[in-house]
Amino acid sequence: VRRVDLNCDAGEGYGPWRMGDDEALLDVVTTVNIACGLHAGDPLIMARTVRMACQRGVGVGAHPGPNDLWGFGRRGVVGEAAADLATLVAYQVGALMGIAAQEGTTVTSVKLHGALSNAAAVDADLAAAMARSIRAVDASLVWLVPAGSAMVAEAEHAGLRIASEVFADRAYDDDGNLVARSLPGAVIDDPATCARRAVQMVVDGGVPSISGRPLRLQADTVCVHGDTPGAVAAARAVRSALEAAGVELSPLAGASLRGG
Amino acid sequence: VRRVDLNCDAGEGYGPWRMGDDEALLDVVTTVNIACGLHAGDPLIMARTVRMACQRGVGVGAHPGPNDLWGFGRRGVVGEAAADLATLVAYQVGALMGIAAQEGTTVTSVKLHGALSNAAAVDADLAAAMARSIRAVDASLVWLVPAGSAMVAEAEHAGLRIASEVFADRAYDDDGNLVARSLPGAVIDDPATCARRAVQMVVDGGVPSISGRPLRLQADTVCVHGDTPGAVAAARAVRSALEAAGVELSPLAGASLRGG
Amino acid sequence: VRRVDLNCDAGEGYGPWRMGDDEALLDVVTTVNIACGLHAGDPLIMARTVRMACQRGVGVGAHPGPNDLWGFGRRGVVGEAAADLATLVAYQVGALMGIAAQEGTTVTSVKLHGALSNAAAVDADLAAAMARSIRAVDASLVWLVPAGSAMVAEAEHAGLRIASEVFADRAYDDDGNLVARSLPGAVIDDPATCARRAVQMVVDGGVPSISGRPLRLQADTVCVHGDTPGAVAAARAVRSALEAAGVELSPLAGASLRGG
Amino acid sequence: VRRVDLNCDAGEGYGPWRMGDDEALLDVVTTVNIACGLHAGDPLIMARTVRMACQRGVGVGAHPGPNDLWGFGRRGVVGEAAADLATLVAYQVGALMGIAAQEGTTVTSVKLHGALSNAAAVDADLAAAMARSIRAVDASLVWLVPAGSAMVAEAEHAGLRIASEVFADRAYDDDGNLVARSLPGAVIDDPATCARRAVQMVVDGGVPSISGRPLRLQADTVCVHGDTPGAVAAARAVRSALEAAGVELSPLAGASLRGG
Repeated sequence: VRRVDLNCDAGEGYGPWRMGDDEALLDVVTTVNIACGLHAGDPLIMARTVRMACQRGVGVGAHPGPNDLWGFGRRGVVGEAAADLATLVAYQVGALMGIAAQEGTTVTSVKLHGALSNAAAVDADLAAAMARSIRAVDASLVWLVPAGSAMVAEAEHAGLRIASEVFADRAYDDDGNLVARSLPGAVIDDPATCARRAVQMVVDGGVPSISGRPLRLQADTVCVHGDTPGAVAAARAVRSALEAAGVELSPLAGASLRGG
Repeated sequence: VRRVDLNCDAGEGYGPWRMGDDEALLDVVTTVNIACGLHAGDPLIMARTVRMACQRGVGVGAHPGPNDLWGFGRRGVVGEAAADLATLVAYQVGALMGIAAQEGTTVTSVKLHGALSNAAAVDADLAAAMARSIRAVDASLVWLVPAGSAMVAEAEHAGLRIASEVFADRAYDDDGNLVARSLPGAVIDDPATCARRAVQMVVDGGVPSISGRPLRLQADTVCVHGDTPGAVAAARAVRSALEAAGVELSPLAGASLRGG
Repeated sequence: VRRVDLNCDAGEGYGPWRMGDDEALLDVVTTVNIACGLHAGDPLIMARTVRMACQRGVGVGAHPGPNDLWGFGRRGVVGEAAADLATLVAYQVGALMGIAAQEGTTVTSVKLHGALSNAAAVDADLAAAMARSIRAVDASLVWLVPAGSAMVAEAEHAGLRIASEVFADRAYDDDGNLVARSLPGAVIDDPATCARRAVQMVVDGGVPSISGRPLRLQADTVCVHGDTPGAVAAARAVRSALEAAGVELSPLAGASLRGG
Repeated sequence: VRRVDLNCDAGEGYGPWRMGDDEALLDVVTTVNIACGLHAGDPLIMARTVRMACQRGVGVGAHPGPNDLWGFGRRGVVGEAAADLATLVAYQVGALMGIAAQEGTTVTSVKLHGALSNAAAVDADLAAAMARSIRAVDASLVWLVPAGSAMVAEAEHAGLRIASEVFADRAYDDDGNLVARSLPGAVIDDPATCARRAVQMVVDGGVPSISGRPLRLQADTVCVHGDTPGAVAAARAVRSALEAAGVELSPLAGASLRGG
């Protein structure tokens, strides 16, 4: 039986503010990436999101970002040292572990947010620093990394387990990288197309690139988004299509994972 | 042989700002309470302070505070629910545990900061919520609590180990509570007097109250301050006097502690 | 012809977050109270809200709050000095004046937010400090103050013009104060009732108190809320009813105002 | 009689934190650039610094920076739109004007901080957006701009008055730009050399570049720094040398300024 994880970001409010429909999304996914207070999220929202995940049997993941609340972690991290950025990650993962322990559960995965993820995907030194920090914080954590990114090799080198992540709503170029959002065709809006692509990636092991070349992509976890209108509908379509194709959806767990 | 811990707050800067002479203080104490980012401190300062502690064999403690950077955690926590304040503590203790793990060490103690400590010292429900959260985060943690405060009984009830804390530079009233800073005689500036009182509390088991009554105080750890001019000198005087009296100074450790 | 202003809060987002349906509300009101960055709002949101107001001929007001983003200015200001809180107001009003000047318009009014307003309504010294600061920043500003509050007399004393504000969706006690939200009957949800009460207050000069006593209330401006579901509908009902009763709705302007 | 302004940054603390010896520096300079709350400074520190300036007859200037407290405005502003950055400036200048009005004085100048200044010095569109915003906020403001930077022409174009600024403690390249701090010889530590160069720039109209070429530099204001050990001593040396050379030190005032 094929098995895959479905992940989404959640808990991305702050104080009185909310973002996205976390309740609806958590009914769909099997792992949730919870913002940890530096680019979004705060301790109370984190605790609430952890409780929502526990009630649904959804795996609890940390979603650390740059120290940039106003910019939602989308302003660059240019000039910030790799060691410092790794320390931001250790802080945030630890913070969620503290909250999870209070709520009687544990953190199982880590996924980087925004400018932090973009930087680590192409900077091997940064990816290596991140991998070492995450492993030092808890060697049982699974790192969600974009399929084919620099983070894959560095995690392996650091002895950190990974889950290779694919995106149902994004086009890939011939090298297996995501096509930049600014380019035509980069984002796939149609839920049915997203769902079909998710099945292709999980069952067939790849999708055609934007130019039509066959592309192999390791799909341990599929990312669904929740912060746009219609996103929850797309997430549900992806889940239904995977189930209809006989794929079992389950949180990240040791057996199915690479490395470590 | 009598044994006692000497603790101080440190890492209370933020971004480009610093507070107190952490290097000098960490040469004197045996446990350091490190600010965790909500009232002061940030991940980089935390990591630096943890490294400084490790180099000196000083025990690493968390110093969680209210979510109030501008007010340095000194603005009140009126109206904030006990469960929410406990969640702030779980977040911060976890965050320091993440940093400590990255640096190859562990967190051994927790001490509340500012308005959070003042509130928990007199509010049994809040103290109980804190104790449960700290214990859930890590059952081996030691909670530094003011001698005789509401926190002592609640920690015992929650199965959380404590270290009873005394203040060498503060006067006590007849009930064993600290005299409010605003009252005359509340703060003791003279290093020699501080040192003499520290020895009395540790060796004799108490000091006279401000009215002259004999007072028994359990002294597992003595607090020294670092953010005033002359504070480091006072801390050194306390340490020297304790050593001269044959007291052994060592970080908090299981054997000497109550509860748990 | 009777004339009245209709005011609402807006621009209460921060960074990526939004609160309420500002576009819909600004189609209804004649003055908007714009958050100024300390409890909510940021420079970009302020500029956008100022532009939206200008496009609709809506008066631009400042809505300064406590320095408490996470708590949305609802945590108390206990222990903060009156002079300091007044300085927070001067900062925020000036900041919006800077933004307004950039956008080619001016700020005409000031209304305090949350814990700042609650404190000034009952603390004459604080109200006096606020009134002096606002007048010093710009003597032509109009201060929106709850009808009958301590702020009325202090504004007069300081030579600051005021607009006396009434609430269509809140019950009043026999002394003309708002009934606390926690008490039954304090908040009026039904749009038709709100609308009827607004007309009574503006046209008849008062409404019955919650116990049924006749109450006189000066209504220079009527507050409508926008952050609850159905709030925009209630605001529209209030406006329609006032217009149907022959009341002219217009931004705050000198002639109709007390004091100064 | 030759006349020049001496300027420094101050008020760069936040909440409980302080930076530099503002009291000593304000005894030396004739204009102070006051941080406005986004990269440093807060309303209370701003009010205190304004009062210190008034007591000494020092001109009050705004020192707006990026919205980046943790990074002290030194993290980049890559990707932030010129119009948005200009709005940040309008907010901050207005905020200081509010504080200054409360304290019975006015703001006379504006100087950009950190990454904001670096970006505007080389990006004509950004410089133009800044100049228009500052002029819209208050047409009588004087903009302190690095001698020879892109800001000079854009200010002239916008009708904004400028003061051309030189640095006594920094080397210039052959194009009249500051040599990057990372290069050898970029920073001049010796107070006597700083003082001699200040006199050359003000009295002779230039200094040799780092390669020895004669360089003409317009010196309406000389910048002195205060955040390094010995900085106050260097500032005093610069002031003494200028006075000994018969130069009159006075705050920025219309007659001596270019443009507008």
